[in-house]
Amino acid sequence: MFQKRTIWLKDAQTIQVIDQRHLPHEIIIRDLQSVAQIVTAIKDMIVRGAPLIGATAGYGVYFACQEAIDQLNPEEYFATCIQNLKHSRPTAVNLFWAIDRMLKALENAKNWEQKIEIALTTAHQIVEDDVEVCRNIGVQGLPIIEALSKAKNGETVQILTHCNAGRLGCIEWGTITSPIYQAHQKGIKVHVWVDETRPRNQGANLTAWELQQAGVPYTVIVDNAGGHIMQHAQVDMVIVGTDRTTRQGDVANKIGTYLKALAAKDNNIPFYVALPSTTLDWTINNGITEIPIEERNPDEVKYVTGWNGKELTNVLITPKESNAKNYGFDVTPARLITAIITERGVCEASEKGLLELFPEKK
Amino acid sequence: MFQKRTIWLKDAQTIQVIDQRHLPHEIIIRDLQSVAQIVTAIKDMIVRGAPLIGATAGYGVYFACQEAIDQLNPEEYFATCIQNLKHSRPTAVNLFWAIDRMLKALENAKNWEQKIEIALTTAHQIVEDDVEVCRNIGVQGLPIIEALSKAKNGETVQILTHCNAGRLGCIEWGTITSPIYQAHQKGIKVHVWVDETRPRNQGANLTAWELQQAGVPYTVIVDNAGGHIMQHAQVDMVIVGTDRTTRQGDVANKIGTYLKALAAKDNNIPFYVALPSTTLDWTINNGITEIPIEERNPDEVKYVTGWNGKELTNVLITPKESNAKNYGFDVTPARLITAIITERGVCEASEKGLLELFPEKK
Repeated sequence: MFQKRTIWLKDAQTIQVIDQRHLPHEIIIRDLQSVAQIVTAIKDMIVRGAPLIGATAGYGVYFACQEAIDQLNPEEYFATCIQNLKHSRPTAVNLFWAIDRMLKALENAKNWEQKIEIALTTAHQIVEDDVEVCRNIGVQGLPIIEALSKAKNGETVQILTHCNAGRLGCIEWGTITSPIYQAHQKGIKVHVWVDETRPRNQGANLTAWELQQAGVPYTVIVDNAGGHIMQHAQVDMVIVGTDRTTRQGDVANKIGTYLKALAAKDNNIPFYVALPSTTLDWTINNGITEIPIEERNPDEVKYVTGWNGKELTNVLITPKESNAKNYGFDVTPARLITAIITERGVCEASEKGLLELFPEKK
Repeated sequence: MFQKRTIWLKDAQTIQVIDQRHLPHEIIIRDLQSVAQIVTAIKDMIVRGAPLIGATAGYGVYFACQEAIDQLNPEEYFATCIQNLKHSRPTAVNLFWAIDRMLKALENAKNWEQKIEIALTTAHQIVEDDVEVCRNIGVQGLPIIEALSKAKNGETVQILTHCNAGRLGCIEWGTITSPIYQAHQKGIKVHVWVDETRPRNQGANLTAWELQQAGVPYTVIVDNAGGHIMQHAQVDMVIVGTDRTTRQGDVANKIGTYLKALAAKDNNIPFYVALPSTTLDWTINNGITEIPIEERNPDEVKYVTGWNGKELTNVLITPKESNAKNYGFDVTPARLITAIITERGVCEASEKGLLELFPEKK
């Protein structure tokens, strides 16, 4: 039942993914067997999370090679497939990154048979690289949890997180969950406060589900509750993911993250951001003024999706004629962040700190 | 259809209230005809909001007198009723205040017939006093909105609120809505950002509904969004209610209020608390250590109640076996509060400030 990875090859014509729209209520495994199905899976959010979107698109390029070989004009068909893949989620940076990496790998192939072979190897490599990056984020972050555990004489380390930056958004391990899983495996007592993360409830739906699967103790709270439990010393650290981090260490993450960072600061609780270096945007500095914030459909605010006992259903929680606004992300300024955890190490949330880990970006 | 007040006497044996659990989807008027029904109405949140709870409990004491007269041991029965009423909700100080006011009024009654009569008069008086107090909170708070409007050359004043401290939590006018309604009536342009206020969504359900009824422009946002809109200068003031305020000006209000106060402070946005003086608890100082915080049923976190198109229904948003914690309130320390608006005037959130308005408490 429990799949360790979020995407895997079933056979040469089939990859399989968990349909994340149905979690935690139903575990539905979907076969993806064509470029068209891959595009739909990304567009309809059967798969979500930047690294997983990238990996899925990688296999999309592999299918594009397979399908092209049977066409009258393989080059033209292939180019159309790439366009369709690129347009599946136009804002997801990892999507373009993964497709570009695939295309680069295919450049020197002599024929379509060879392209198919290289595409499969490269798609696998994207997957394995993500696993390794996430594993290393855990290796780097684990000592932080170990130190807190030691300071508490082995008592449970209380960790608060927001949204889902777990393995479901990646392939394995996840970003913020990687140090938590590694601590848990090492026998360090941890407990995770899971923010439900309105409007799409990825905390309540996804983070809760994957922690349950992994046997890590957790408790779901509403997004409003984090400040109260911090005031009452029930949180030892906060750790969140990010969709985009600037050169000076400002962090865009799911809407509401900034409020938790303020509460952590006000209560002297360390606030960490875990990220793969691919989410660092070295071209911008000020997150509040430079990162555009996606505004999504207001119906995600007016309705809540959940399980009515039989099926997924939407219920209205506002007056029918109500206005609503749906901002997807907010920016947490670097001054509120204790440290950034990357696959290369832990650093201060500042240009200086980041450049010490990534000197090639100087 | 639209009832101007939230509680009224239908006949000597019946008070009527709007069942607020069904708003904004259905307007259901409930008859309350016994102490037991009053206790249930408060406990199950058919009525909610500190002043309305107090008023309802007032009629509860009236019913207790009516019921006691028929008992073998009226004194004992009455005492049990008072205990049950006092235990219906733990955080709202108005409940205790209203019951104490009722008991005091009954002290000199010669017999149960007289008690019944005095109880009814006093319960009515509690209602009328609340209306007048709320109207005066509006009179005191209006100049704040007027000044912001003037500073913006008549452009719309953007006001953020959390939960429902509107007329639905009171009898008429509401606390935080009273200055807003009075500004709106005066032709000052206002727009209200309504936090949905999970877990019970009293913002999305109730504040949105009553603003809609009153024709005041509003937009519902998730609780997570307030920090982002404050960062982007879309909020001119925050105003919230309170269930209990300490001598030094610490404010207990719906869970999540503290997070908005932090964001207001971080963005130099004034943060106001509007309160009737009955919610001031002069016996305590430190809100964080001294105010008991109600912990409610975790199912309010795990399930969301909404309208499926036909009826109110609960949908599950977490794994079925998930743990959840449901804290009802949090405490906003006085240092984050710009000013307190009471029926007597506006003051600093401090013992000094409060005593200037209420010198009899020195």
